[in-house]
Amino acid sequence: MTHVLPSYLQGAWWAPDSDEGAVEVHDASTGELVSRVSARGADLVGALEYARTRGQAALGALTFHQRALLLKQFALALTARKDELYEVSKHTGATVRDSLSDIDGGIGVLFTYSSKGRRELPNARVIVDGPAESLSKDGSFLGEHVFTRLPGVALQINAFNFPMWGALEKFAPAFLAGVPSIVKPATPTAYVAEAWVRILVETGLLPEGSLQLVSGSVSGILDHLRLGDIVGFTGSASTAERLRTHENVQSGAVRFTTETDSINASILGPDATPGTPEFDAYVKQLLVELTTKAGQKCTAIRRAIVPKGQVDAVVEALRAKIDERVVIGDPHAESVTMGPLVSVEQRDEVRRSVDALRAAGGELLLGSTEAPEVVHADGTRGSGESGAFLAPILVGFDDVETPEVHRIEAFGPVASILGYDSVAQAVDLVARGGGSLVTSVATNDHDVAVELLAGIGAYNGRVLFLDRENARTSTGHGSPVPHLVHGGPGRAGGGEELGGIRAVLHHMQRTAVQGSPAVLTALTGVWHAGAPTEATGRHPFRKSLRDLAIGDSIVSASREVTLEDIETFANFTGDTFYAHMDEEAAAANPFFPGRVAHGYLLVSWAAGLFVDPAPGPVLANYGLENLRFVTPVSPGDEIRVGLTAKQITPRETDEYGEVRWDAVIRNQRDEIVATYDVLTLVAKDDVSASETVGAAATEAVR
Amino acid sequence: MTHVLPSYLQGAWWAPDSDEGAVEVHDASTGELVSRVSARGADLVGALEYARTRGQAALGALTFHQRALLLKQFALALTARKDELYEVSKHTGATVRDSLSDIDGGIGVLFTYSSKGRRELPNARVIVDGPAESLSKDGSFLGEHVFTRLPGVALQINAFNFPMWGALEKFAPAFLAGVPSIVKPATPTAYVAEAWVRILVETGLLPEGSLQLVSGSVSGILDHLRLGDIVGFTGSASTAERLRTHENVQSGAVRFTTETDSINASILGPDATPGTPEFDAYVKQLLVELTTKAGQKCTAIRRAIVPKGQVDAVVEALRAKIDERVVIGDPHAESVTMGPLVSVEQRDEVRRSVDALRAAGGELLLGSTEAPEVVHADGTRGSGESGAFLAPILVGFDDVETPEVHRIEAFGPVASILGYDSVAQAVDLVARGGGSLVTSVATNDHDVAVELLAGIGAYNGRVLFLDRENARTSTGHGSPVPHLVHGGPGRAGGGEELGGIRAVLHHMQRTAVQGSPAVLTALTGVWHAGAPTEATGRHPFRKSLRDLAIGDSIVSASREVTLEDIETFANFTGDTFYAHMDEEAAAANPFFPGRVAHGYLLVSWAAGLFVDPAPGPVLANYGLENLRFVTPVSPGDEIRVGLTAKQITPRETDEYGEVRWDAVIRNQRDEIVATYDVLTLVAKDDVSASETVGAAATEAVR
Repeated sequence: MTHVLPSYLQGAWWAPDSDEGAVEVHDASTGELVSRVSARGADLVGALEYARTRGQAALGALTFHQRALLLKQFALALTARKDELYEVSKHTGATVRDSLSDIDGGIGVLFTYSSKGRRELPNARVIVDGPAESLSKDGSFLGEHVFTRLPGVALQINAFNFPMWGALEKFAPAFLAGVPSIVKPATPTAYVAEAWVRILVETGLLPEGSLQLVSGSVSGILDHLRLGDIVGFTGSASTAERLRTHENVQSGAVRFTTETDSINASILGPDATPGTPEFDAYVKQLLVELTTKAGQKCTAIRRAIVPKGQVDAVVEALRAKIDERVVIGDPHAESVTMGPLVSVEQRDEVRRSVDALRAAGGELLLGSTEAPEVVHADGTRGSGESGAFLAPILVGFDDVETPEVHRIEAFGPVASILGYDSVAQAVDLVARGGGSLVTSVATNDHDVAVELLAGIGAYNGRVLFLDRENARTSTGHGSPVPHLVHGGPGRAGGGEELGGIRAVLHHMQRTAVQGSPAVLTALTGVWHAGAPTEATGRHPFRKSLRDLAIGDSIVSASREVTLEDIETFANFTGDTFYAHMDEEAAAANPFFPGRVAHGYLLVSWAAGLFVDPAPGPVLANYGLENLRFVTPVSPGDEIRVGLTAKQITPRETDEYGEVRWDAVIRNQRDEIVATYDVLTLVAKDDVSASETVGAAATEAVR
Repeated sequence: MTHVLPSYLQGAWWAPDSDEGAVEVHDASTGELVSRVSARGADLVGALEYARTRGQAALGALTFHQRALLLKQFALALTARKDELYEVSKHTGATVRDSLSDIDGGIGVLFTYSSKGRRELPNARVIVDGPAESLSKDGSFLGEHVFTRLPGVALQINAFNFPMWGALEKFAPAFLAGVPSIVKPATPTAYVAEAWVRILVETGLLPEGSLQLVSGSVSGILDHLRLGDIVGFTGSASTAERLRTHENVQSGAVRFTTETDSINASILGPDATPGTPEFDAYVKQLLVELTTKAGQKCTAIRRAIVPKGQVDAVVEALRAKIDERVVIGDPHAESVTMGPLVSVEQRDEVRRSVDALRAAGGELLLGSTEAPEVVHADGTRGSGESGAFLAPILVGFDDVETPEVHRIEAFGPVASILGYDSVAQAVDLVARGGGSLVTSVATNDHDVAVELLAGIGAYNGRVLFLDRENARTSTGHGSPVPHLVHGGPGRAGGGEELGGIRAVLHHMQRTAVQGSPAVLTALTGVWHAGAPTEATGRHPFRKSLRDLAIGDSIVSASREVTLEDIETFANFTGDTFYAHMDEEAAAANPFFPGRVAHGYLLVSWAAGLFVDPAPGPVLANYGLENLRFVTPVSPGDEIRVGLTAKQITPRETDEYGEVRWDAVIRNQRDEIVATYDVLTLVAKDDVSASETVGAAATEAVR
């Protein structure tokens, strides 16, 4: 491991010829040399062009579902070789629990994006955003929003603390969007990134140019970025500001999204007094945030904001928990629950920050900046001076408005504790952080929760409410989840990552598209009302996915609704609502001319009118969406239904797929009675659909 | 009009004591003095604080629907005094057609946001974004995204060309979001902004601090902005870049959204040869974009990109149209169809830009930079030298890759024409603009449309496809509509405005909120599955809006489904699909154990189980959403339904409102059979609901 760490560029592993200028990276616990990091002489411009040409082409050939399936295969490959990753991670100071969030967390991001990509995106290459808007009275001119992928490359600059999760949470949405990634890990933990990239490369499944790795500096690369490229940065606020001033970012050409460490807060509610489950959950969470990754998390709690009268109780409860549970040492030793910081440089930086907090009036209530006693890899106890060890530190302040406490981040196992007088003051203290990734609140009082969210919402990317109901199931203050956005305003960088499909869209351009229904249908692959329909002789329910086309349509025969029908339906279903049964009362209702047919009768009959009863490719009606009853149907009216294939979504791994049908019920005056979408499962092949599909269909309806 | 133009600050009109340093603004056609503009000595810091305190408080007291209704009243007030605005606008050089887009267009934005605010937003103060995500197996810990308004002020810096529309398209979404505005108009047309602000002030309906106007410079104001404030800028790319480098923007504290002029393109498709409707529509649109506002639109066509062989045909057709239709002159004269530029300074700037294009190899194919003959206000013809007049100019280039043609914007009646060899080259030419607000395409070939959108989508905020179907109904290349986003990547500023509710969200912070179902219910006002329900003795359908509470619930009795029921339903509806009628065929279907009940039978019965038949506050079931059939129901199974009040939306102007009910059908094994939302209209008052509501209910279902 003492050669220069290789990069993966233009489809091949590469390393500089010599280790001149390489940075030596050491084991966080023992100080032994682990790796030399340098990309001196790497062809970064060539890497960008490779991504923009081969990467764009290879990813562009795939649909969202196909890319999503690859993400699942990547996740499975990493899962199969997880032990290797856990082992190499120990050098960074990560305990098994720390690696759980980095390694399993990273794999989890891949699984989530794989699943969401197939559930929430079409099996296509563009994404429609929101409904079409009619821009002319006759319906010949529509407007709609469409997302297309960025034509460039995603440069992903990662922080040292999560070499796997932090990189994969950027890579997964870029990949799903169809944008090639260049991953630049932080030097102190670059060898972990090299390890997971190597596993992915060895799967042989990476589309050409979709993933490159620069193990070393990318200095100067911003000069070569342009419109269509995106930079995702995680790290310090000061570096983010420096990068943001580059002219290619300033000009608006290059998208730049940042997620920086912030002075996150955790509020103990006025109701959460000692003895309540919320108090216990609060203290337990504070301990976790101080010790996990030795506090080296941009989401960690930096400010514990508690009722003034509870400061002492929280300090004492935390002291007891630390005494009971915290064993500091080399993660190679099993008993260890808290590892070192990533490097002695980082430890010294934290010491300086703590000194600055003390100089501003802070008092050490728990811990110190001295080297603690630690457990070594062989289980013996001894001095922690050789590694980057620090014990948990809690700093108290008499003046809670001290500017430094809201500005200085000690990026380690360090938090301040501040006492508040009122909920309004707690809001003010949170706001003084200038924008955070996350604030958590422990309260069982919903009024307090509502007041706090109204006050602190705009200052936070995420707010977590802890209470007795979720104390055991909460994923925790410091843990972003792939389903929810990660990022925050102001000091937190102003960026947004994750949040499910939201992060995919950050790699695409939203464009308003205007045109006729026919051209919007062609552009989106979704049939638009007003576009041509094709009423072939064959009932569209007799067509398999391979034969069915967008716009295939059928208009049913008409059927008259009689008063007897309404009464039959009322008696059969039990729905004897007066609007169907009582002429006088119905007429007094502002929306009905008199007795009217049940809405459910209309959609039930519509199914009777359009359904094709014999076995065929249509396997099931699994749902219905956006049903609106527009015109009431009175006895003597006739209804007919038009059904048009609107969207076809073949599944990649099944012998069937989803077909969405546009359904419109009209009356004898051609007025629209009801509109809705019918959702069906349809076999890919015509021949004896049930048999073809039978074995494959293990899940009912996803 | 020759005193110093007043500002509207802290709830009162204000002007400097002297006109020292004031800018003199002249009539665009005659050069006569119209106004002096200065805000020297204005208390801008006081204005910011007034907005952040009084403005935030007054707007925060209102719900989205209440704010939306005020927007409608503003629109009505401006409509009533439209003639005054048309008259004052003539001084800017605006013809009646020009004012249509500025004045009626501005009023239209207010109407659209009023309507969308009430249709698409809840009658509440926070907006839920997307579905809740379950983050624990037992459902006790959920995550969801919530938008809350920014706590600061919206500073809106506008361009001179649309002093009303340009300001209102920023004001309306900010107001709807609940964020107070400070409007800073461009100096040359500031007197038009003063006129419409005065009309709004005189309504007496503006919430305190919600709108302020600075008629003059806001130099230095960025020093006083902070996290929670937002700047919306429209103007030149160079000014945008300068503002963006301010440290309060760089630090990520202040949101900064820009919409800058860009080198927009219009593509004539290869199929749109002379004689086709697309060719005619293309030339007609080119004429409109050259002459409307004398070409002073950031959305105007700057590059006509046409098949190489059609360059001459387009030039000649455009020449004929200009000869036939364009009458340049003072908008006070009725015959005039094209006015002057806003000022002689602006005219001279355009002349310089045209000279630069010629110096780069451009050839004037139509028009010249000389002063044209014009029609004066009294109808006489004469020299245009006294005003800011220019005739339409078309510049040809032999080398279509000349950098200047893709970079220099002549902000007047000027476009270049470029010939292309292939669709791929047309895509490349569009991209060379470095990001545009809009590109239009005239084609009737869907394959060309698909190829173009894939290539140019990421370079454009809007793409318009013109064809024979929408040639007459298209709203035009240069016209943003409030329903669709306005803005574009790169050179176009990288911002997004309008786009319906999207622009409201730009004034709010999206925050991921995690917590138990009960706390999410309290925070959003929307019932979440797993939150407590209240099954009172009274059927919730007997409660008016005033009595009904989120979580009010009923669980019905059970009812057994027999084979006879299924057959009865099949025969009554005509839905004899084999899964209901043929045991052997149904069992062969991968999703069914054998014959099963119709989905429509289940929801019809569910209505029969939960409905309360006598007249009462529930007036109608107007729709149903998100229906999913989860578990098939076989003969002998029993079903029951649970119904819970999920969201209550009282209307501001009617005696009723919408109630959304969460419906879950379960079987005798407690498995979920189907889930859906039932949409109903419910009266606000209990007493004889029908009578109360009767007169008010003019619209059926909005």
